[in-house]
Parts: sequence; C-alpha cells; structure tokens
Amino acid sequence: MSIRRIALTILAMLAWATSAHAQTDPLPSWNETPTKQAIVAFVAKVTQAGGSDFVPPPERIAVFDMDGTLVPERPIPLALIPILADIRDAVARTPDLGNRPAVAALLKGDHAGLHALGEQGLNDLIAAVTDGKTTEQITANVRPLIANRPSESFGVSYGRAIYRPMQELLAYLQANGFTSWICSGSPLLITRELAPEMFGIPPERVMGSNVRTRLDERDGKTVLVFAGHVEHLNDQDGKPVTINRTIGARPLFVAGNEGGRGDIAMMRWSKDRSGPSFQLLIDHDDAEREFAYAEPDDFSLNAARRYGFQIVSIKQDWKVVIGK
Amino acid sequence: MSIRRIALTILAMLAWATSAHAQTDPLPSWNETPTKQAIVAFVAKVTQAGGSDFVPPPERIAVFDMDGTLVPERPIPLALIPILADIRDAVARTPDLGNRPAVAALLKGDHAGLHALGEQGLNDLIAAVTDGKTTEQITANVRPLIANRPSESFGVSYGRAIYRPMQELLAYLQANGFTSWICSGSPLLITRELAPEMFGIPPERVMGSNVRTRLDERDGKTVLVFAGHVEHLNDQDGKPVTINRTIGARPLFVAGNEGGRGDIAMMRWSKDRSGPSFQLLIDHDDAEREFAYAEPDDFSLNAARRYGFQIVSIKQDWKVVIGK
Repeated sequence: MSIRRIALTILAMLAWATSAHAQTDPLPSWNETPTKQAIVAFVAKVTQAGGSDFVPPPERIAVFDMDGTLVPERPIPLALIPILADIRDAVARTPDLGNRPAVAALLKGDHAGLHALGEQGLNDLIAAVTDGKTTEQITANVRPLIANRPSESFGVSYGRAIYRPMQELLAYLQANGFTSWICSGSPLLITRELAPEMFGIPPERVMGSNVRTRLDERDGKTVLVFAGHVEHLNDQDGKPVTINRTIGARPLFVAGNEGGRGDIAMMRWSKDRSGPSFQLLIDHDDAEREFAYAEPDDFSLNAARRYGFQIVSIKQDWKVVIGK
Repeated sequence: MSIRRIALTILAMLAWATSAHAQTDPLPSWNETPTKQAIVAFVAKVTQAGGSDFVPPPERIAVFDMDGTLVPERPIPLALIPILADIRDAVARTPDLGNRPAVAALLKGDHAGLHALGEQGLNDLIAAVTDGKTTEQITANVRPLIANRPSESFGVSYGRAIYRPMQELLAYLQANGFTSWICSGSPLLITRELAPEMFGIPPERVMGSNVRTRLDERDGKTVLVFAGHVEHLNDQDGKPVTINRTIGARPLFVAGNEGGRGDIAMMRWSKDRSGPSFQLLIDHDDAEREFAYAEPDDFSLNAARRYGFQIVSIKQDWKVVIGK
C-alpha cells in the first residue's frame, strides 16, 4: 500500500469516525452525565420496534414549558416585553390608567404587588392592554419587539437567547418521531407568535393562558376582540386541563422547571399515563452562566424526587447554556 | 398485428384511460355541476406555484363542521348516542335524576323543551352524565357504541354513515397540501374519539363544545374530572373564537351546513381573511336520499348568497350521498 493510499484510508476512517460520532451524539451541548444518559436511554427504549416499551409515533407527544425551560425567564419572561410596550402606549394615551393599582405595580416592576392583586389585577391589566383592539392588532408587533431587542444578560437578542441544550433536545425528539408542543403560562397569542421562529414549533402546537375573545365587526368585516378578562390561567393544575382539551392525551415526555411550581401538575399527569413516560425538571442552579433561584420550600424539586422525575442541573448537565 | 395483440393493445389503452381519468377526477361522487367546478378551480388556483393566488401549505387550513356536513345530523347527531346511553345508565342508578326537567326532556326526545331550558338545562344534563367520572371513563365507550350501532336510515352502521362526497373532498384537499380540522358544536371529547377512524383526522385537530374539567386524584393517581358545567358552546360566534384559540389563523377553506345557523360565523371569518378563501354551505334539500330541512328564515342560505359562499345542493351536486 502506497503512503498516499494509507493516508487516504486513514482520512476516510477519520471521516467515518467523525460522522459516526456525530450520529451517536445528538446532544453535544449536554455533559456526559446520568441526565443525558437517562434521556437517551428513554428515547431508545420507546422507539425500539418490537421492544416491550415501544410507543407508536402518534403517541410520542412531548410537551415543553417555555419560560425557564426553553428560554431564561429572568430578568423578565418574554411575553412581558410586548405587554409592557402596550401598557406604556395605553398609559401615554390615557394617563388615568397609570393610577390603577395593577398597572402602577407592573410599571414599577413590583411583581409581588401585582401578584397580590390576584385575578382582578390581571383583568385590569388585560383591559388596559387590549382595550378595543382586535386579536390581529395585538399580535402584530410581538415578533419584531422580541426578535430585535438585545438581551441585557446574554449578548444576543431576546429572540436568540434560547437554551441550546433544549434546542438540541427538541431536534433529537423530532428526529425520533416525537411531536413537540409548548404549554406555557404566558399568554397564548403572544407565545404562539414566537414559537415557529424560536423553537420550530408551529402556532397550532402552542398552549398558553387565554383571554376571552368575542366576534365583532369593524367596517363590515368580522374580527375577534378581547372581552377584557382571563378565560384560563395556564399554570399548575391548569396545564393538564389545557393539554387534555388541546391534544386529548397524556404526554409521553414533559419538560418544565422549578422556580414557580408551575409544571409539577402536568408532569404528574404524564407520569400517571399507562406505560413508559419521562419528566424532566430544570433546576436553575447556575448563578454564573444564568440565574440561580429556587422556591422557598423546594416544592418542585421535592416533587421531582418523590415522583421520580429527572432533575437537570444547569451547572452540571449543560456544557453550553445560551448558544451564540 | 395479430388479433390477440390488437386486443391487448386496446386493453392497455383502456387501462391507461381509466387510470388517467381516475387521476383527473378526484371527486367521483360529485356530479359535474358548477359546485364541483368551483371547488376544483379554487384548489388549482391556491396551489399553483408562482400564481398570484398561491397559498403556501402551512396556510392551507381547512375547517369542517361535523354534524350535517360530514355525516347526517338526522335522526340524531352522533354525540347523542353515547350521551343517551350514559343518561339512561345514570337514571337506572339514581332514578331521581329522571325528574330533572332537562333529563326528562332528553329521554322523551323533546328537543324543543330541552332547548328552552337553556344553559342551566345543559348543565343539569352534564352533571347527570359526568357525575364524578373521569374524562377517560366518559370517553371509553364512545367508539364501540357508535361504530357498531346500525343506522336506522342508511343500511350501514353509524360509524360508516359518512357523506362520501365529503370523504372525497377531505382526501382531495389532503392530496393538495391542505390540513383539515373539525370544528363541531358537539362535545369535544366525544367528537375527538370519532374523528380518526371516521374522517382520518387526528384527535388534536378536533374542536368542539367543552365542559370544564379539573385535576383530581384517585388512588394516588392524577385524573381529570368534570366540573359539571359548560365552559364553551362551540356554535355560531363561538366557532371563530375556538378556531383562533386552537389554530391561530383564519381558515382558507370552511365547510358547514344550513339547518341550525351554526356555521355562518366561521364562514364569514374565513371570507374576511386577506387573500383568497372558499366557503362551502351544504343545503339539505334531498328528502329522498337523506333528509330535507331548512331554517324557517333561511338565515344560512341567505348569508351564503350575500357573502358569496358556495352552496352545495345534495340533490343536484352529489351522485352518491352515503357510501356503502
């Protein structure tokens, strides 16, 4: 064998090895920890034809929370960007609005005060933001506002501040015949504007909190306008309710995060399906590369331990947090 | 050329002509009327790459009403079969239930009396049917009850009493890159059980009326149970509201029927999208092969004429009504 021939053979073997490695590592931004192994083992198990845990593709339903699970929810959740812009516009037009306690609390960034005002506070905000507007008017500026705004924390725009390990997980599940959905506590009509570009998830596979709408006419044409109050808060126990109404099945795979107790109900509902299932709970424990925060009583982490959900430590399990 | 050779050549030409004809006639159960021509011309127009009316596949959303549009709604709508069975079971267990006005009206077949009881009557029925049951218990017997029950009118089971021209239309739209959904006034959880087998539409592409549910526990496992009252009546103005919440876009194509005024709102909402659209309203005018019925004021037919919806005369436009 000539040296040239040997060199070519080695190059070919290297190319093969590299491509084989690429094929066997669909999650390169995940460290080689038990978390990654558990995800890969689960996907292998439910996709193995003839295996006892095989799940047919139509049942390979994966549901992802958004804020804190696919994107950082600090310093603010994505949906607040267009909501704050709309509120500021509304107050500029009608200064009296600024005196409503909920509007004042939001503009001051007083999230605890806003929370204390409960559903009535939320309805006041909704009325201020949506006042007489159609659904199409409200959603028109969502994408440009978020896509172009630079993130204060990550050196990219908000529209690109996405957890890269979770992007890889979405692609990995899709390559294995899963269909992924978003189930967010953020407003449905805002979340839906972001999902296609940011996560490759089409608008009809997005669930969220919802404001009641009704059919109206403007200049002889039908439009949907907001009725001014919350129809469904898509958080905690509200999430399995929405998933059942929208998809009609318990998900095979659910991903959420600790921090607001919001995702445990849908994880338990997935866990209680008959047959295999997987629940992934992200622990925000990396103050250096992201934000470290926890629930005072560790409700979600304790639930994960009790029910056997897989906990993701951002610090230990993720090689990269935000892709550049 | 031998006679055998000539015969074989003619046979081959016939086979070719038949297959060519099959390829160019995707709607063989439709008569060659202006209705069929309008459907075919619309589909050709919106799928022609580079044409001024081209609509990309993700926007090729088609929404179908179910009762009276895909299947006969007389003598009873499909969903009433399992509901009546559940009501009779409930009354057998708890005879007092039979004294509630709504339950008594339904069991007597007094639909006008039931209608007069309004939303409270409906909530009484829901409470009687769903009493303490989980969503999974309620839906378990829907498919066998409907699939196997012989239709009194069409010589096939209810599960097969489907308008063949509409089955062909669903297949034709799918072959042209459309995604079809059902938007029915019937209960969501029942309609969804029927859609895959009867119409080839997966459960997550079904919209319907909805009863509020909440998360509960049974034997330590999470379940969804009914809260006993209507959350959303998916009829008339309620249909565009549901379509926007579920899909997030005005449909390109809508099919409904006259008889209950239920589909005009979603047709108008489709018509008012920017760009081309098509609305198809079925007129139940064939007493011989189906049932002839009309609204006293011809509300839907008049709306179709006013807004330019395509009216389907079952009598004139359909070669076959129910496939055998």
